[in-house]
Amino acid sequence: MMQEAVSNADYKYRVEVCFFPGQYPLYAQDMGIVVVIDVLRATSAMVAAFENGVDRIIPVSTIEEAAAYIGKEGYIAAAERNGEVVEGFAYGNSPLAYVGEDLSGKTIVMTTTNGTKAINVAKDARMLVVGSFLNLTALSEWLVQQDDNILLLCSGWKDKFNLEDSVFAGAVMDRLLESGKFGVEEDSSIAAKYMFMSARDNFFSVVKAAPRRRRIQQLQLLPDVKYCLTPDQSAVIPVLKGSELVRLDTTLSPA
Amino acid sequence: MMQEAVSNADYKYRVEVCFFPGQYPLYAQDMGIVVVIDVLRATSAMVAAFENGVDRIIPVSTIEEAAAYIGKEGYIAAAERNGEVVEGFAYGNSPLAYVGEDLSGKTIVMTTTNGTKAINVAKDARMLVVGSFLNLTALSEWLVQQDDNILLLCSGWKDKFNLEDSVFAGAVMDRLLESGKFGVEEDSSIAAKYMFMSARDNFFSVVKAAPRRRRIQQLQLLPDVKYCLTPDQSAVIPVLKGSELVRLDTTLSPA
Repeated sequence: MMQEAVSNADYKYRVEVCFFPGQYPLYAQDMGIVVVIDVLRATSAMVAAFENGVDRIIPVSTIEEAAAYIGKEGYIAAAERNGEVVEGFAYGNSPLAYVGEDLSGKTIVMTTTNGTKAINVAKDARMLVVGSFLNLTALSEWLVQQDDNILLLCSGWKDKFNLEDSVFAGAVMDRLLESGKFGVEEDSSIAAKYMFMSARDNFFSVVKAAPRRRRIQQLQLLPDVKYCLTPDQSAVIPVLKGSELVRLDTTLSPA
Repeated sequence: MMQEAVSNADYKYRVEVCFFPGQYPLYAQDMGIVVVIDVLRATSAMVAAFENGVDRIIPVSTIEEAAAYIGKEGYIAAAERNGEVVEGFAYGNSPLAYVGEDLSGKTIVMTTTNGTKAINVAKDARMLVVGSFLNLTALSEWLVQQDDNILLLCSGWKDKFNLEDSVFAGAVMDRLLESGKFGVEEDSSIAAKYMFMSARDNFFSVVKAAPRRRRIQQLQLLPDVKYCLTPDQSAVIPVLKGSELVRLDTTLSPA
């Protein structure tokens, strides 16, 4: 199991995992494409919003920036802190809030505890895309065609290590390593692959196994969590253009 | 596998894993006993030195502090940076340097890249002990008797996640969770247990799987690495008293 994780010695590009936004500078060197991951729930919500027609998402760092868009025509203001919708906002980071709505032509302005922070630290990457179980296969298939080093950036939970983001990173890595084109050099990357291998038969068990905040929130968040852990509900890959996330046009030739 | 890791819901105390010294403040709250871990090689060297008779070890942060003891009667000055013995020193962080020597009555003054840094950040813990595969069973058996929360503090590698320290933390955790007395609340702790479960059949494979610095250093460090990954060569548990590490007297009643 251990050796399987790093068997391809002749890789051309690296795929690595960074466990928290705070460590991004330690891992960013030589990385062309950054995949921001916040499975519960920011990046899941972003993919769900695009899947339901939204035009663009503007990730912002502060509640004040998002609040300026409350009630503004064509905009949806979304703010989450500590897992809750911020007072005064109709939307937080629940992907289910966007499901079944027609959001064509709308712009979401979103701030979250962890996910938008991760986007912010990596915003100067050559290319920044957004990953979640919702777009796992579409994202992996696109990544494997790219000729560049890839950093899977987990959002974590308030600067701490986060299991579901790391398992997702391991899932992406598993597919990229299979190609033989990518290899790993960081211990964190190997660890993420092991976590994925431990969790692969039941993504949902990951949540049961992550006790503290789940114990508190499990009941009210259960539909959200199930949704966020269900792979391949969307083929959309959000990509950062300037300060906005838009749909990546995957019909273009590899970057 | 996932559920097994957190099956004991009626635990009295927590055992948690912190992956880097820099995150210690995020995990230190309510923790009574801190176990500092630097498998390759500082904490392995410390246990080996006590096993070979040394009286005490003074961990210091700077090369200058250690250099002041070069040639001083009764002292051994040891300094390592980037895996190498620092110029001017006879000792670095290799445990094999202490094996087969009679070090009775000696004091080691030691500075290393990662391990002594971890000791320094946690020096105000109620109790700080040193762990390595060399004293795995003795340490685990002593820990399980303690009535306190336990933090397993990995030294990492230059502020990055480190596989062998995390696997060792998972090994200790595995034994503590079996007792039913301890439980976990942090995602990092669950992840460490998975890494241990992936690695348990062959500790040595961990090193093969951790590519970058191993690829560079594998050949010259191979005897050291084998020694550091061989469990249960010592019953000594180093404990910090003031600014010195000494042997813990495990015949005393639980703290």
